[in-house]
This record gives sequence, structure tokens and C-alpha cells, in this order.
Amino acid sequence: MAELQVNCLYDFEGDDYNGELSFVAGETLTVLRQDIGDGWWEARSQDGRQGLVPETYVEVMSAPEPQFPPPPPPMVAETAYPTNGSMEQHQHQMPQQQQSFDDWDDDWDDDDDESSNSTGGASQQDLAGQGNFGLAAPTRREKQISPGSEMSKYGTVKSSFNRFSHFAKSGGEAFLMGQGEERVSDSDKIRIVETEEGPVWLNQDAAYTCTFSNLQVSRRYKHFDWLHERLEVKFVCIPIPPLPDKAVTGRYESEFVQERMRQLQYWVNRMVRHPVISRSDVLHHFLTCTDDKKWKVGKRKAEKDEFQGAKFFQLVEPPNQALETRDLEGKMENFCKFVMNMTENVKTLITVHHDYAKKQLGPFKREYTKIGTSLKQLALTFNLDKSPHSGALTAAIDYTGDAYNEIGEMFEKQPPREAYPLIEALYEYKGILQTYPEVLKVHEGAIGKAKECIKLQEEGKMNETEVTSVLTRADTISYATLAEMNNFQRDRVVDFKSMMQHYLREQIDFYKNLTQKLETALHHYDNA
Amino acid sequence: MAELQVNCLYDFEGDDYNGELSFVAGETLTVLRQDIGDGWWEARSQDGRQGLVPETYVEVMSAPEPQFPPPPPPMVAETAYPTNGSMEQHQHQMPQQQQSFDDWDDDWDDDDDESSNSTGGASQQDLAGQGNFGLAAPTRREKQISPGSEMSKYGTVKSSFNRFSHFAKSGGEAFLMGQGEERVSDSDKIRIVETEEGPVWLNQDAAYTCTFSNLQVSRRYKHFDWLHERLEVKFVCIPIPPLPDKAVTGRYESEFVQERMRQLQYWVNRMVRHPVISRSDVLHHFLTCTDDKKWKVGKRKAEKDEFQGAKFFQLVEPPNQALETRDLEGKMENFCKFVMNMTENVKTLITVHHDYAKKQLGPFKREYTKIGTSLKQLALTFNLDKSPHSGALTAAIDYTGDAYNEIGEMFEKQPPREAYPLIEALYEYKGILQTYPEVLKVHEGAIGKAKECIKLQEEGKMNETEVTSVLTRADTISYATLAEMNNFQRDRVVDFKSMMQHYLREQIDFYKNLTQKLETALHHYDNA
Repeated sequence: MAELQVNCLYDFEGDDYNGELSFVAGETLTVLRQDIGDGWWEARSQDGRQGLVPETYVEVMSAPEPQFPPPPPPMVAETAYPTNGSMEQHQHQMPQQQQSFDDWDDDWDDDDDESSNSTGGASQQDLAGQGNFGLAAPTRREKQISPGSEMSKYGTVKSSFNRFSHFAKSGGEAFLMGQGEERVSDSDKIRIVETEEGPVWLNQDAAYTCTFSNLQVSRRYKHFDWLHERLEVKFVCIPIPPLPDKAVTGRYESEFVQERMRQLQYWVNRMVRHPVISRSDVLHHFLTCTDDKKWKVGKRKAEKDEFQGAKFFQLVEPPNQALETRDLEGKMENFCKFVMNMTENVKTLITVHHDYAKKQLGPFKREYTKIGTSLKQLALTFNLDKSPHSGALTAAIDYTGDAYNEIGEMFEKQPPREAYPLIEALYEYKGILQTYPEVLKVHEGAIGKAKECIKLQEEGKMNETEVTSVLTRADTISYATLAEMNNFQRDRVVDFKSMMQHYLREQIDFYKNLTQKLETALHHYDNA
Repeated sequence: MAELQVNCLYDFEGDDYNGELSFVAGETLTVLRQDIGDGWWEARSQDGRQGLVPETYVEVMSAPEPQFPPPPPPMVAETAYPTNGSMEQHQHQMPQQQQSFDDWDDDWDDDDDESSNSTGGASQQDLAGQGNFGLAAPTRREKQISPGSEMSKYGTVKSSFNRFSHFAKSGGEAFLMGQGEERVSDSDKIRIVETEEGPVWLNQDAAYTCTFSNLQVSRRYKHFDWLHERLEVKFVCIPIPPLPDKAVTGRYESEFVQERMRQLQYWVNRMVRHPVISRSDVLHHFLTCTDDKKWKVGKRKAEKDEFQGAKFFQLVEPPNQALETRDLEGKMENFCKFVMNMTENVKTLITVHHDYAKKQLGPFKREYTKIGTSLKQLALTFNLDKSPHSGALTAAIDYTGDAYNEIGEMFEKQPPREAYPLIEALYEYKGILQTYPEVLKVHEGAIGKAKECIKLQEEGKMNETEVTSVLTRADTISYATLAEMNNFQRDRVVDFKSMMQHYLREQIDFYKNLTQKLETALHHYDNA
């Protein structure tokens, strides 16, 4: 394909940090990629700088000039790396046995460079290969109804398409157009079946987790980091929650390490629990490999996985029935709203329970200790009265003082049982939820592209067979997305049920214990 | 008796507010009273001003001059009028039936002037009559070991004798010296008996209260005020707790009136419960008189009671055994410490429970409401998922949200059940305790005077029969004081037992209720 040259219509001050390319009106740029999405292209200036350019700021050498500079496309908000947390589930035990893998470390560093080159390079090549396949360069008029605006229907996920669109980067368009299809063995197929609650991953309930039970291998944080990256690359329709923070300041080293270990365990458990991820070679390798050389082989194999990115959808075998667009859009809109609202709810719950824990550690404890101390002091004074009828009351008051002091201490010990586990679990959901919009954009990209194809067919630029095939493949992406949404909701119900039960049980235990202390104190007055 | 003239040795700047008389060195004053105590005399200047003067600043016309001005005697701290509170005891019902006594009001005002003149005048005359009976004018050398310093042995009650000494004012010295003895009818006698816990008022346990049960009369606040004054004048060895504040700012009128009514009821109950006070004509009159004219008669009779002030001790029939001085002093010292420490304890408990109530109304409620609200919001979001497995969890979370909101409201409703009744009861004790030091000073005055007499006997200035008789009468005061101390301790044990039981029961009920709410919420997850 010949290089596409564009003429810059206006000055543009790009944001280096976001990989944008600055240019002045009149400059000529070479377009490298048009499949970035969201109104951005990638281009190279004549002095060799590369970066993103707003496509409305440039004209392909023969195109007409607009009258005034349109606004650049919207920015994508940077998402902060969260601390991850997890359910209290321990299906998959992975205690510390680091010695056997300690020697990987030096090795890994070499590996690292190699792998980041090879993976980065590979995906870059893949994308370059499918860069512009005839549909990806809509005219400026068409842009008005292109992917970004389509998403605004979902309302809640902002229409700010990432300029490095996950859809585009993952090879979504190539998949939709039926490019690069590989032979899929039957055993590799991932089936989606229709249920009363909608499409679900087949074997969603089957315990693949069993396979990995009672395994005892240890991994370093960077191994987790590597696995996380692989899973993100491979499963574009599945939100892979971020790993727990690598470093948290203001905690004692040992305490933090323990907490992170637990959280990493939860993270792995969640991956193991997933009906699709649990079947993946990469997870299997991570969980089971205990040999240095085999590790390297498996690692490279995983990085060269044929079916990663949008190619994953080649594995997916959805129900035969075509999806009804309106119904699908309703579901997506609803789910986007769900994700956005739940994100807010989870953040609020975290804040509320952080505050609550602080209150328990401080003011709540203090109130009861103050009562306890003042009663103990009163008992000390009452003890000055040595008359026979006085002693029993004095002892009862002294006992009551002790009881309140103990209750104060109970409050102090409560957060690790009650608020902290809840917060940890909520953090894990915060991680999943903040990953989800990006995942949904893959689907949004597919839907947008499918609509473009329909339009092109109407304009006689694409034939029916081609378009039908695109729509079928778009349905595959929709089915996978819906199946994952249902999987998320199932997990959510299970997790929140267990969270709430644990939380309430701890509170009930606490208040029963507190009541019992008061009752015992009360009985001391019976003979006073 | 000829008027005693003194020469002022130094300038003295008196505090008008405390009724002190300013004078300059060389001025001549006429001494009006030498029985004020604590190093103060009352005198009149030649220009007709009257007031208190430090006796070490003046010399009786022939006495030798000291070299430099000694410090004036210590000041007596002003005691603030407290809000009174009471146990929740309702033996004596006295609902509002104000109409029958409303017409007293105008009448009362006339009465008031009359009575304050007649009482004030009467007691003034009484005191004047016994002003200086030969023992009350110790030489300056003797002053070094006089009443004030004696009290310092008790340590805790400050040696600051009130310059208008309760002992002196009430006619304590006259009683000790056997002056003004009246015939006491057998039925009027108040007997003290020795028990294992020490001397107690006879019939301490007998329910004089029965006599007054089910009476229904109403009194205005000023009637209470009058009764309070009469009881204070009559029972110098009994701490009469102050009435609840006449006005409390910052409350709604109706709420305050109700609260004060309840507190006045508690106050009356406490008087009715007292083994000695309950037998008094003045209380009987207050509780039973429903007739306007009879009221006035009874009122005047009470004001002219023969056995008020120190004369009350004429009624007291103590055990025959003389008290052992060392044992008595130990008891008094211990009790003074008790009163002082308990005063601090009670103040602390009031502060702690005021704070606690504030926490319940504010932060505690807020924490639970925040949890409730955030759970309700989460349920709202979860309700977007209409899949069949989701609804039960959503409902359970919504229910849990309600439960936490209700718990928040429970916290807000708790202070009137828990902290406020305790505070009210503590306030009543605060009132009694702050009255006690003044009461103890009557006894201290008697002990001091008795010691003076012993000294005078040693110096051959008093004969054995006289002194023995003084010591017997001092023992009567001691016995009465000890009986009242024991009465106080008995009441205290009963009251604090009931306070603590009530308090703990309310807390237990509260936390049981709270736990039950959480348990009900937990059960909602059973089928989720």
C-alpha cells in the first residue's frame, strides 16, 4: 500500500505525554495508521517525529478545506493504578516456596527486554498489517456518526474512545473482516450457550479450579505482572483486574508484604475461578510450571499465542441465533450504567468503611474507655466506704468499668475482622470495574464497525455476503461480551453475598460479645 | 455586755462582695460579733459601716501589737447553684393540680417579705443573743490552734471555714454550751442506734414515705424554694440537695418545665425517703396541706420552729457510749476524702456521659446512616441487573441498608433512655455532694469548740462538769453527723445500684435490639 500523505490545515500543539504530534499548518505528514479510532491517526513528520494527530486537522492531499479549526477529539482520562483486594476465598493455595524460582530473577531481566520487544513488536506488526483495509478510512462526513457517537447511546461510558482503541489495537477490525483466520481445534473452542439469564460461557459452573487445587508453587511479583499482561492481551472481552499495588507507602514492610501476598492470592483465585481464563495455557503454565527451562519455553509460547487479542474471538463458538440489535443495545446501555454506578457505590462503600474503621479505632474505643475509666475511678472512691453493704456494689461497678474498657478494646480489634475484609473485597471490585469500560470499548468498536458496513452496503460499496459475515462475527464479539457480563454478574452475586454475610456475621458476633459483657456486668449487681 | 472596741493595726482593703469591711490603721471599730469563726469578726466603723474584719488586723484596746501584718484568713470559694437531678423513683406522686393553690401567689408575695424578715430577723436575734459567751473570744495565741486549723486534719475539706460559719450561725456553740435547752417531748425525739456499720438514724428503714403515698397536691416552684430553705435551716447535719435550676437556657419552655417537674418530684422523693426529714412537720405540711389558710398557719409555725439550726441536736438521742476521738477523726477524714473524690468522679461521669450522648446523637448515628445509605445505593444499582439470580441479593442488601439506617436512628433515640437518666441521677448526687462540706463544717466547728474547752479546762478556766457536758453534746453532734453519713452511704448504695442496673439494662436492650436487626438482615441472604 502506498504511503498516505496529508497536508496540515491548522497549527496543533500536541500533548507529548499522550503521544500526540505537534505540527503547524502547511506541514506534510505521512500517515502510519488510520485505525486508531476516536478521530485520531498516527503519523510521522518529515523530520522523523511520530505521534497522534487529530484527523480533522489534516487533509488527505486532495480533500477540501474546512472553514475553521474544529475542536480536537476528547481526551481520555488517565486511570490511576488501584490497590487491589479480594474475597476471602482460598480455593487455590499458593504458599511461599520462593527458593526454587529465585534463580529466575537474573534470567528474567534478559527475558524481559526480549519479551517486551517481541510482544510489543508482534502486536505492532499485526496491527500494521491490517492497518487500513478499505473500511477504516471513512470520509469526514461519515465521521459524524462514527464509533464515538455511537457509544454515547450507552450514555454512561463516556464517548471518549481511547485514541489507541482497544478494538483497533487488538485487531478487532481484522477479525470482523474475517482476516487472519486460523484453524481452531475442537478442544480449543470456547462455547457460549443461551440460558434464561442470557448467553453464558459453557462450563461456567464447572470447576476447572480443581485441576489446580493443592498446587504449591511460588511466584515473584514480576511473574504476576507478566501473567497480568498476558491475560490482558489475550482476553480482550474479559476485565482482568489490576494486580494489588506493588508498593504501598506508610506501612511496615512485613505487614505490607503479607497483605500483598494475600491479595495476589485472591487475584489468582479469581483468575482460576474464571470459566475461560482457567482453561488458558498461560494460566496453567503460571500455576504449574516448576522447571526453569520449561518456564522459559512456556513463557515464549504464551507470548506468541496465535489466538490473543481479537483473534481470541476465533475460538468463540456462540449460539446460532443472531442477536437483536435493539435488545443488545438496551442491555449494553444498562450494563454501562451498572458499571458506572457500581463504581461510584464501591468507592463510597470503601470511603464509608475506612471512616467507620477509623471511628472504631479512635472515637468509639475512646468513648467506651472513658466510661470504663470513670467507673473504675468511682469504684476506687466507693472502696473508701468499708461498710458491709457497700462492698458488693463497689465490686460490681469496678467490674463494669473493666467491661467497658474491654469493650473499648473490642472496638479497636474490630476493623481487621469487619471493615478491612470488606474494603479489601471492594478494592478488588473497584479494580474490575475500572477495567471494564476499556473492555466494553472493544465491543463498541465492533458494533460501530458493523454499522459502517451496513451503511457501505446501502451505498453499494460492500456486498451482502461480506456484510452478513461481518455481522455474524460482530455477533460473536457481542455474545462473548454478554457472556462475560453475565459471568461478572454471577461472580458479583456470589461475592457480594459472601462479603455481606461475612460482614454481618462479624458485626453480630461483635455485638453479641459486647452484650454478653454488659449482661455479665449487670449480674454483678444482683447481690449488691 | 459592754461593747468591745478594737484598734485597727493595719490598713485592710475588704471585699465588699463578701461583706468585708475596709479600714485603715488607727481606726477604732466596734465589734458586733466574735462568733463568726475562721478568724473573722463582725464590726461597725465609727461612720456606721458594718462588715467582717480579720481579727488579727485589730487589737482589743489593751492588747500588744504584732510586728508585721499577718495574712488575712483564707477565702471561701463561692459554690455555683447546680442543676439538680434525681433517681427514677416515683413513690410519691404529685401530679399537676395547680388550680387550688394558684390563689396563693399574690398572698405569697406579702408573705415572702414578712417571712424573710421574720426568719432572717429571728435567726439574727438568736445568734446575737448567744454572741459571746465567754469561750468565743480566744486570745491571739490560742488562735494558732483554733477551728480552722483543726479541720486541716481532715485534709480534704479545705480548712477555709466559712466566715459566716454554719456552726456559729446555726447556734452550734450555744447548743454545745447547753444554752437555750427546751423540753423535748418523747415523740419528737430522734434516736440514733449503733449498728455494725456504725450509728444510724432509728427507723432508717421504716417507710415514713407510706404516710405520704398517693397524695395529690401541687406546689409552685417558690413553695419548693421555701421548703428547701426551711429544711436547710432546720437540719444542719443533713445535706439538703439544691433544687433543680429555676431556669435553664437553651431549651424549649415546655420541655424544660416537664424536666424540672420531674426533677422536683425526685427532690421531694428524696426528702420523703429520709428517715429524719420525712418525720418533720414542715415536710408534712408541704406535702399534705390543701387549704389556703391552714397553709399560712403551718408556714409561720415552720418558720418559728423551736428546734431548728443547732437546736435540732436537742431532739437527738444518741447511744450512751462516748465516741473515741481518734476513731471519729479517722472516719471523718475518710468521709471527707470520699466526698471530695466522689464529687470529682460524679463530675467526670457527667462529662463523659454528656459526651457519649452527643456522640450517639451525632457521629455514632452518622456512621450507621452512612453505611445504610451506601448499601441502599448499591442495592439501587444492583437492581439494574434483572437476572433471576440477582434479585434476592439486591433485596437483602436493600434490607440491610434499611437495618443500618434504623440502627442509626436507634442511636439517636438512646440518650433519653441511657445517658440522660444517668446524668440526671448524677446531678442529684452532685448537688448533695456539694452541700456536704458545709454540713461537715458544723461538726468540725463542734469538735473544734470541744477541744477549746478541754484546753480551757487544762488551763483551769473551765470546770470538769461543764467540759464533760460539752463533750457529751459534741458527741451528740458527732453521732448525728455519723448517722447522716451512714444514711448517705446507704442511699448511695441503693441509688447507684439502681442507676447502674437501669443503665446497663438499657444498653443491653439496645445492643440486643441492634444485634437482632443485623441477624434479621443476615437471614435475608440465606436464599440470595
